[in-house]
Amino acid sequence: MIATKSYAAQKAKEALGPFSIQRREPGEHDVLIDIAYCGVCHSDIHQAKDEWGGSIFPMVPGHEIAGKVAKVGAAVKKFKVGDSVGVGCFVDSCRECPSCKEGLEQYCTNGMNATYNGYEKDKKTPTYGGYSTHITVDENYVLRIPSSIPLDKAAPLLCAGITTYSPLRQWKIKTGDKVAVVGLGGLGHMGVKLAAAMGAEVTVISTSDKKKDDALKLGAKHFLNSKAPDAFKNYTGHFDFILNTVSANIDFNSYLALLKRDGTMVQVGAPDKPVPVHVFSLIMGRRRLAGSLIGGIKETQEMLDFCGEKGLGADVEVIPMNKINEAYERMIKGDVHYRFVIDINSLK
Amino acid sequence: MIATKSYAAQKAKEALGPFSIQRREPGEHDVLIDIAYCGVCHSDIHQAKDEWGGSIFPMVPGHEIAGKVAKVGAAVKKFKVGDSVGVGCFVDSCRECPSCKEGLEQYCTNGMNATYNGYEKDKKTPTYGGYSTHITVDENYVLRIPSSIPLDKAAPLLCAGITTYSPLRQWKIKTGDKVAVVGLGGLGHMGVKLAAAMGAEVTVISTSDKKKDDALKLGAKHFLNSKAPDAFKNYTGHFDFILNTVSANIDFNSYLALLKRDGTMVQVGAPDKPVPVHVFSLIMGRRRLAGSLIGGIKETQEMLDFCGEKGLGADVEVIPMNKINEAYERMIKGDVHYRFVIDINSLK
Repeated sequence: MIATKSYAAQKAKEALGPFSIQRREPGEHDVLIDIAYCGVCHSDIHQAKDEWGGSIFPMVPGHEIAGKVAKVGAAVKKFKVGDSVGVGCFVDSCRECPSCKEGLEQYCTNGMNATYNGYEKDKKTPTYGGYSTHITVDENYVLRIPSSIPLDKAAPLLCAGITTYSPLRQWKIKTGDKVAVVGLGGLGHMGVKLAAAMGAEVTVISTSDKKKDDALKLGAKHFLNSKAPDAFKNYTGHFDFILNTVSANIDFNSYLALLKRDGTMVQVGAPDKPVPVHVFSLIMGRRRLAGSLIGGIKETQEMLDFCGEKGLGADVEVIPMNKINEAYERMIKGDVHYRFVIDINSLK
Repeated sequence: MIATKSYAAQKAKEALGPFSIQRREPGEHDVLIDIAYCGVCHSDIHQAKDEWGGSIFPMVPGHEIAGKVAKVGAAVKKFKVGDSVGVGCFVDSCRECPSCKEGLEQYCTNGMNATYNGYEKDKKTPTYGGYSTHITVDENYVLRIPSSIPLDKAAPLLCAGITTYSPLRQWKIKTGDKVAVVGLGGLGHMGVKLAAAMGAEVTVISTSDKKKDDALKLGAKHFLNSKAPDAFKNYTGHFDFILNTVSANIDFNSYLALLKRDGTMVQVGAPDKPVPVHVFSLIMGRRRLAGSLIGGIKETQEMLDFCGEKGLGADVEVIPMNKINEAYERMIKGDVHYRFVIDINSLK
């Protein structure tokens, strides 16, 4: 076993602090990764605070992992020592169900093995995430990071990037499409960059005018303040696609009305309470309300390659490991532009 | 003008009775139709009783019209006297907006001209529907009824048929797909026949075991009583597609859970109140909730031709015109198998 430094929450609502974990020596198909950066996702907070229930403690969060290959198993074919690699929200899956066979491991019928707050395939060894110096992962669940993306800016692509890329591809966003991105946080800022890079005409819809300048810098052409009086007045039937990244309970019906015929609103943010939907909003204009969950390994690699080609990465604030609790507090207040990324060297 | 006998509601909540209307002499592009049968749609009741608001009185309901061409205008190319023809929910549209140009007149941006309870293109002459002996319609909004479908069984295809056919085609239902049809009324019974004819393995989901035998006779392979304890227990992730024909406020989330990954539930029934949707139901499994409104002229013709080939028509109870008020009462109680159709000869 490989002694590994990490930061963990020992129980719900307790501050994170130093913790020692063991990583397995790489087996035949494994890659040992020397972690350089780990992004801080809002779901890290929800799970560390056990806000969704069922959290496993001690918990080492982190599923936006970027680093270098330190060691490979004898049968590893895809990677060699020194390669820049990443790990996202899961480190394994059943590999046998239809979803796994189609490369959509995130929908694994038997439950994917989450990178943290989950279990290994033995269903009893807890998984620990990227707030740690090393991680051992089967090569089939490791992604290649193109050399053109700095590792700190690459880390958030493993969750925020793929979560927004996947629905844009699934719904075939193309040049000239009018796309609205609702919310400009960690997910939203990547949604804007990716949709713009696909050639879409992007509008950011946000509750605060403070986001306007950033929205335009990130690649949006237009900005709508949803709290302004008559904000949506001239936008009925305007958009081909709406990517809703917020978890707040917004009025879905007023957003659905902004879609053209055959337009789709995809939820990547999940409000905790049911949202009232007027079926009439869907019937008129044959509109669609859909959901999307991260992305599979194949599509995540495609997204990283796309970002590599287009020169895209996340906008990050790099912090040392010991500032994580402070970072959580700032994220809860929405005070981050647009993703905290932990410099894992600060832990070594 | 052509003096025409009809049945009309003179005001909301008043029984329908005999009424004289005028039809225009066919213009260059018009077809005069001698109506043989008119189906009775539940929306006839809603509108005659002004339950949706904004009803125009006197009102001659009826948008499931089947008959024979009695006269054609000089420039009419598609039809000749004696042809079997039908008219559905609209008799004209702007012909200029993107939806009209794509043959999706039902989503006409400028508002289609409804067959009744609407206005002609002059926006002031009220339209009167098929509870009448004749109707004059532009040939571009007239459908050809294949000779293999008796006119009484064809009439309901013009609304109930196309309303269920269109989403099945839109979502590409194919041989072997597992399709659930929720509700076995006028729409549902056509949904079952059409989905089965497309090769789908159909399950009817209904609140009453009384519908089971009929469901199987109509082409369903399975029947689920949604009120039975644990009715849905073994059906999580089972269906490719759910066609929801009911307007009752059912628990959408328990139905969405029955969908496979990438499965779609399409609403053709519209509950009057907003329905609570758990976004998590959509995100897990990348599911979709969509709506669909009747169908365009091109697709309606395709549906009629499909029914002609497959030997499909509606299951009807033919009534004389003077039984219409009684028929409404029975429909409100759900007592019809599965569509009342008025024998318009009884009015002549």
